[in-house]
Parts: sequence; structure tokens; C-alpha cells
Amino acid sequence: MQPFVFHNPTEIVFGVDTADKVGKYAARQGGKALLVYGRNSIKTTGLYDRVTASLQAAGLSWVDHGGVKSNPVLSHVREGVAVAKREQVDVVVAVGGGSVLDESKAIAAGALCDHDVWEFFLQAKVEKALPLVTVLTLAATGSEMNSGGVVTNENTAQKFNIGSPLLFPKTSILDPALTYTVPADYTAYSAVDAISHIIEGYFTSNDQATPLQDRFVEGLVKTIMESTEQILQQPDHADARATMMWSATWALNGLSTAGIGLYQFPNHMIEHSLSAMYDIAHGAGLSIVIPGWMDYAATQNPAKFAQFARRVFDCELSDDLECARYGIEALKTWFHSIGSPVSLAQGNIPDEEIGAIADNAVMLARKWGLKAYTAEVIADILSRCRS
Amino acid sequence: MQPFVFHNPTEIVFGVDTADKVGKYAARQGGKALLVYGRNSIKTTGLYDRVTASLQAAGLSWVDHGGVKSNPVLSHVREGVAVAKREQVDVVVAVGGGSVLDESKAIAAGALCDHDVWEFFLQAKVEKALPLVTVLTLAATGSEMNSGGVVTNENTAQKFNIGSPLLFPKTSILDPALTYTVPADYTAYSAVDAISHIIEGYFTSNDQATPLQDRFVEGLVKTIMESTEQILQQPDHADARATMMWSATWALNGLSTAGIGLYQFPNHMIEHSLSAMYDIAHGAGLSIVIPGWMDYAATQNPAKFAQFARRVFDCELSDDLECARYGIEALKTWFHSIGSPVSLAQGNIPDEEIGAIADNAVMLARKWGLKAYTAEVIADILSRCRS
Repeated sequence: MQPFVFHNPTEIVFGVDTADKVGKYAARQGGKALLVYGRNSIKTTGLYDRVTASLQAAGLSWVDHGGVKSNPVLSHVREGVAVAKREQVDVVVAVGGGSVLDESKAIAAGALCDHDVWEFFLQAKVEKALPLVTVLTLAATGSEMNSGGVVTNENTAQKFNIGSPLLFPKTSILDPALTYTVPADYTAYSAVDAISHIIEGYFTSNDQATPLQDRFVEGLVKTIMESTEQILQQPDHADARATMMWSATWALNGLSTAGIGLYQFPNHMIEHSLSAMYDIAHGAGLSIVIPGWMDYAATQNPAKFAQFARRVFDCELSDDLECARYGIEALKTWFHSIGSPVSLAQGNIPDEEIGAIADNAVMLARKWGLKAYTAEVIADILSRCRS
Repeated sequence: MQPFVFHNPTEIVFGVDTADKVGKYAARQGGKALLVYGRNSIKTTGLYDRVTASLQAAGLSWVDHGGVKSNPVLSHVREGVAVAKREQVDVVVAVGGGSVLDESKAIAAGALCDHDVWEFFLQAKVEKALPLVTVLTLAATGSEMNSGGVVTNENTAQKFNIGSPLLFPKTSILDPALTYTVPADYTAYSAVDAISHIIEGYFTSNDQATPLQDRFVEGLVKTIMESTEQILQQPDHADARATMMWSATWALNGLSTAGIGLYQFPNHMIEHSLSAMYDIAHGAGLSIVIPGWMDYAATQNPAKFAQFARRVFDCELSDDLECARYGIEALKTWFHSIGSPVSLAQGNIPDEEIGAIADNAVMLARKWGLKAYTAEVIADILSRCRS
């Protein structure tokens, strides 16, 4: 194990119908809210009315900032920052999935600084931020209990991240009933996303003596797979939706990586280019990239890939590399079984684009310090994702 | 899964030699500290000098409150409260194991109230408390990342607990090197203690649909067992000590029980009487009680006990109750193998005392609302702990 600091101050309020309590928690942070949400769905489902009734009952006023896109874009973040400044809000209330939460974090930081908000995605440090309260509607990204967010600059096709301890939500309301209507495809993409968050650290850590973290990851992967299968059978399966929601939260809140030392996010690095360039769902992009990346990486650390195959997929092969390959194939087969694409072809991304994707991804590789990932290496990995 | 609120704001600073950073973190909380510690060991090991050098370098003054007993006693807590009030300290700095941390929590609450500190152990609510910074020297109780503490009132032989969100340490410094010299017996008792914390909720929860929590518990138990065996072979095994320290912290910080609904601490309820009446180490008392309690409880929920046996001890028996018994025997055998007592006889507690212990334990059973645990039931369980 390696030294670390772990500090996750987000309060989680979990349970069916907790969405109606948002006013109580938002009121602790101030009297006027910026209410951030996506397209129309929270209005058609009645959630908008429930949230605003709760804010009103708690004595808050609010101003709307709807229309957040999945893969949130910088122009819309800038609009939100302008509204937050003009209206002098005290708190940001985010109602939605990871995109809404990520955009809200950027707005929370941008509202209290004088420079353009994109500076935070390049190198500026967040010095202060509005408090953030969230109501989660999709179990996937983990943004509800972490301090980071991702936004796409549509002018430069850069999908970059913001991060600061000041951006942990003060309170996140996790009401699994809000996810009962998530369709099968997004349920699958969400499962892929959550799994991707935990396996990045697991496979790329520079420390192999992390048995607690390993078992935590393996338990999360098995639980997410099991719950996803139950949900696809029965979309309003209360226990499976609840388990999936809590699992996705813990997949990216710092616990699985605390003590594992240096690690990388190569799958996210490559996928960010896919979804920045093709507007493909993040989880769908990940299920295309992950099997190819694993195929590339397994030879460098076959023992860890074999452990994964043995503990998650009950592989009994004795040779580590054979076992690793078994696990990669099993995970790819599972992604396919839940309806997520597992090749560039299935994602409707032409092979001829591999060079362009690699050229885009290498920008992020440089920003994240992934020196081994040259454009050639990324193109090699993408070539393993063709079919 | 059941509704819950999870909020654990303690900052963890983990790694070899982090003890030397205590001043930096204590200084965030104020300029004058009450320095709480146990008998002489932190002076003979040099830790006292390291901690005070760090406090001094950070500009803090401090007043000593040493001499905390294992199984801390109320009279010494009251002395600490008097010192904290008289000296008007800003922060409590606890350097030690669970006993020192638990006493420090009681002092932190007692220092800012007008009534006797024992009231908090009976029913008074903590309204304010001094901030607490800890340097942990024993991986066992989890007190470093939770909001509770246990103190014995030596006049009434009551071992009761205090709890409040205000009692989470602000920062806990986990320096695994401080545990390299923990002797074999206390290493074993600590492992039993940590395991006991996670299995209480696992076996007594009223909700069976908690696969994530189950796997987290099972992974912790396997990891604690594995690390303890490594430590007993090689006491300064850096990775095993680190893993044990981090595991014990997560064994009682709220995660393993979040979402599992109602649960109980019957083994702790009974053990508290053993250690209150006989001054036996807490972990040693637990390894005496647990196999007997499991034998008593397995028939009520054989499926869960069988799951434990299958996943932790690779039991392949198909009958749940047979499998449950296999797991109980395996755990008892393991406790014995690490040198922790597994019977009243091994703990030098005469069988004739069973009635008196049960009469004492039932006080706590009533306080904790464990209605099924009459003196007769507790005596029945203790009779299963005889050999």
C-alpha cells in the first residue's frame, strides 16, 4: 500500500422518495438556488414539480438553468455561470444524471471567479465555489460523491475535467425510484461506466499489495453485473436499482483507489475522444474501448488480469495469460449480452477514423501525463477494438 | 436495501511517518491542545517526543492527560474533562488505540457542557464538542473514523457508549509503522475485534437484499484474516500492517451497515460484560462469545451463515445449516490459531459466573433495545461458550 489522504465529506441521503426532501438540505446552504437540469424529462416525469415544491416548502427561491446536454458543453456551462452571477444565487441544486452534476460543478466554480470557467479545465485552481446539492436520476458516473466533472469544449473538441475538494456535493440525494424508468440501453451503459471506473485503478496501479482494494473492486464488479441483469429483467426491481445506485456511487468516490499509489485512466482517455467526436454515449464508448485496451495491457500484468478472471468470472485456467484472455472475453461477452456495443463497427465508427481519434486522444494523454500512450499506441489499441 | 443517511466527514492521512504531521492538522483546529494518551508506551517508543515536536513546530501549546486505561474508565474521563475546562483547550489530540480515542471523544463532549459527562452515556444528547485529531497506534476499534466511543463506569460496572456526529475526528492520522511493535496477542485480539464489527450487521440485519454490503464484509473478513496471518509471521510486514490498519478502519465507519436496515450488536452486548467484569481484552472476550452466539443464531438464519461459510471459508456443503456449522467451526478454529481464546475456560472465567454475567449483560441489552436477549437467552449463549 501507498500513502494517501482520503476525505470525502459528501452527505448521502438514500432511499425511495428522498427526492422530496431536497428543499430541507438545500436550505442549509442558502435561500436562493440555481436549479440545473437536462432536457425535458424531469418535467414530463413530474420530478421538476416535486423538487420545486420541496424547495418552496423550505422557503427557497430559485432560477432555472435547464437544457444540459449529455456530454455537457462549455457554451451551456458559460450560460449557467452568467445566470448564477446575475441572479446572485447561494446554492446550485442539480437534478439529473452525471452530465447535469458535472455541469453544475463547473457552474459552482465559475460563479465565484472573475476569469472564464474553461480556465479551470486547463490549469487554474478552484479557490472557492458555490455549495452544491444534487438529486441523482441515473446511477452511473459517481459524480454525486466525488469532486470532479467533465465538460466538452465544442469549439476545440476537447473533453476535459475540472476537480477540486471544493466541488464535493454538500448533500446528494439518491432516490433509486427515480431510476426505475431508465431505459435498457442507458441502464447497460451506466453499468459499463461504473465498472470502468473501478477497473482503471485496479489494472493500472503501480502497487500490487492492495488486497482490500482488490476485493472491494471485485465485489463491486460482481454486484453491478448481478444487479444489471436483474434490472434488465425487471426495470422497477427496487433492490437491484438501489444496489446499482449505491454501487455506482462507490465506484468513483476515492475508496477503491485510496492506497493503490499511481494509476491511470487510459480507457477514459481514449473514450473521451470517441464521445467528443461522435456524440456516442460515454458507457457505449467505454464498452468498445475496454476489451481492446485489456487485450493490449494484459501482457504487461497478466497476474492481475488473471486474478480478475478467477475472482469475477470463476476462471479455473492455471496459466495467467490464458486466464487473463478468458476474463477479457468474458467481460466483452457480458457487455454484449446487456446490449452495449463492443466494437467500433457496432458503434458505427468507421475504421478509417482510427488515426483521427488517436490524434485527438493523444491531447488528453499528454494532459493526464500518460506518456506511454503515443498516437501510435492509441491507434494500436483502437485497432484491437475493430470487431 | 433500506433507506439511510451516510455522512463520514473524517479526513484520513495514511502512511508511514505521517505521525510527524499531526501538528499541521491539529493547528487547523486551534492553538492549545489536550494531549491524551495511555500508559507509558508512547514515551518509551519515542512517539510522545515526535508528536510534541510536531505540535511545537506547528505553534501549538498543549497540556498532558496521560494514563488512559485499556477499557477506559469514567473517573479518568472526568479528570480529563476537568483539565480541558481549566486549561481552556481548543482541540483534543488523541495518541493511542481505541481506548485513548474513545476516552478523548468523551472528554471532547464533556469539556463543553455543564453537566456530568456520564449523562451522555445514559441519554443526554451532545450539542457541541471540541474538535478531535487522532494519531492511531493500534488497528482494531475503528474509532478513528466513527462517531462513537465506549467507557466503563467503574462504580456501576456499566460499559456504555457515547455517540454523536459531532464526535467524528476531524483528522485521523494512520501511520501503520506505529503498529509494527504491537505484540502477537494484541494483534490477534485486534483482528477479532475488527471482524466482530462487520459480522454483527451482516448476521443480524433485517434485510437480505444487500449484496454489495455482503461482499464488502466478506472481502474485509478475508483480508483481515490474510493480513493477520502475515503479521504473525512477520510483525513488521509493512503491507500487511497497512492493509490491517485500513481494513479495521472500514470495519466500523458506517459503510458496511449503510442500507442494511435494522441490525444489532449482540456479541458486543455480551462481551461488554465480560470485559467490564473481568478486565479481559475486548478482542479476547469477543472470540469467546462469537462462536457461541453464532451457534445460537445460525438456526434463525441458516442461509446467511451458509453464505458466509461458502464465500469466506470455501465451504462446499449443500445443506445450509450444515454449511453454517462448518463456517462457525472454521472461524473458531481460526481464532484459536491466532492465539485468541475461544472459550470461557480459556479466558479463565469460571462457568459458575454465567448467571452473573448474564444479569450484567441484560442491562445493556435493555439499553440497546435487544428485547429477545433476556438473562435466560444470554445465559444459554454463554453456556455454548464454555468449551
